[in-house]
Amino acid sequence: MGRTGRRPGESGTQQAILDAARAAFTEAGYDGATMRTIARTAGVDPALVHHYFGTKEHLFVAAMQLPFDPALIIPSLLAPGLDGLGERIVRLFVSIWDAPEAVSPFIGLLRGAMTHEKSAAMLREFVTSAIFGRVTAALDVDQPQFRANLVASQLIGMAFARYILRIEPLATVPSEKVVATVAPTIQRYLTAPL
Amino acid sequence: MGRTGRRPGESGTQQAILDAARAAFTEAGYDGATMRTIARTAGVDPALVHHYFGTKEHLFVAAMQLPFDPALIIPSLLAPGLDGLGERIVRLFVSIWDAPEAVSPFIGLLRGAMTHEKSAAMLREFVTSAIFGRVTAALDVDQPQFRANLVASQLIGMAFARYILRIEPLATVPSEKVVATVAPTIQRYLTAPL
Repeated sequence: MGRTGRRPGESGTQQAILDAARAAFTEAGYDGATMRTIARTAGVDPALVHHYFGTKEHLFVAAMQLPFDPALIIPSLLAPGLDGLGERIVRLFVSIWDAPEAVSPFIGLLRGAMTHEKSAAMLREFVTSAIFGRVTAALDVDQPQFRANLVASQLIGMAFARYILRIEPLATVPSEKVVATVAPTIQRYLTAPL
Repeated sequence: MGRTGRRPGESGTQQAILDAARAAFTEAGYDGATMRTIARTAGVDPALVHHYFGTKEHLFVAAMQLPFDPALIIPSLLAPGLDGLGERIVRLFVSIWDAPEAVSPFIGLLRGAMTHEKSAAMLREFVTSAIFGRVTAALDVDQPQFRANLVASQLIGMAFARYILRIEPLATVPSEKVVATVAPTIQRYLTAPL
C-alpha cells in the first residue's frame, strides 16, 4: 500500500489510461477522442478516468506531458488585465522553456505536427480549444482569436530559434533581454489596432 | 545528348555530388563539410563540383532544395535601405511559403533540427553564415546579429503557425493581412532601439 492509501495497481491503471489516451488523441484528434473510448481501450470504467484525470483537457495535458496547464496559466495571465499582459506572457514562456527536460515532450509534439497531418490536427485542435478559446472568451478586444494566433506564432518561433535551433546571440542572451525585446511585440499583437 | 549539349551521364554526376553533399553536410555540419571531401565521396574532381554548383553555399542550397537562395534574396531585400525593409521581408516570406511544394524540403530541414543536434547545428551554421552574416555586414544598426535572430524567430514561428500547424484564422487570412500585421514587428526588430 502506498503512503496515500491507494490500492496496489493504481499506477498501472493510470498508466494504461495515459497510454490509451495518447493512442486515441493521436488517432482521432483532440476533438474526436472521447473519454468513453479511452476508458474502453484502457479496460476501465469512464468514471475512473474522470476520477483520476478530471476533464479531457487535463487528460491531454497529462498524457502528452505538457510543460504547463492552460486551465491554470491562461486565467492567471489574463486576470490582471491587458496592461502588461505581453510582458507576463513572455516572462512565463521563458521560465517554462528554461527547463529543457520539461519541454522535451512538447518538442516531440511540435515535431509530430511537422511530420503527420493527424498530429498537426490534434495539436491545432488542442491549442484552439484550451488556449485560444480561453483567450478569446476573456479578452475585450477585436479579432481576439487572430491576435492569439499572432502571439502563438512569435512564441513558437522564439522556442524554435532560442531553444531548439539555438542561433546566437539569441540562444544565450539573458532571459530578461528576451522579455524586454519580445514583450512589446506580444502586447502590440494583443492590444494595438490591427 | 540533351538539348543543352551536355554529356550523357552529366545529370548522374550532378546527382552523385548532391547526394555526397547531403551526407557531408549532415555528418560534418555546414561549417565542417568541405568541397574536397564532397568531391571525393562523389568520385569526381573538386573543380567539377565548383563548375556545377559554384560555392559551398550554393551547393548547400541545391542539395537541401531550399526554396530561396540567400545570396540573391538578402542583397535585393537590403538594397533599398532600412525604410520598408520589414514589409519587403514579410511579403517575400509569404510569397515563398504560399507555394507548399517548394517549402516541403525546408520543412524536412526544420524537422531534422528538432530531432538531431547534428541537424540543428548544420542549419544553425548555414543560417548564421548565409543569412545573418549578410544582414550583419549590410545593416547599419547596433546589435545587427541579435536583430536578425529576432526576425528569424518571428518568421519561423509564422511558418509554423500559418503553414504547418495551420491555426485559424491565421492560416486563411489573405497574405496582405499577414504582411500588414507582421511587417511592423520585423521593422521594429531591425531598426527600433532595443
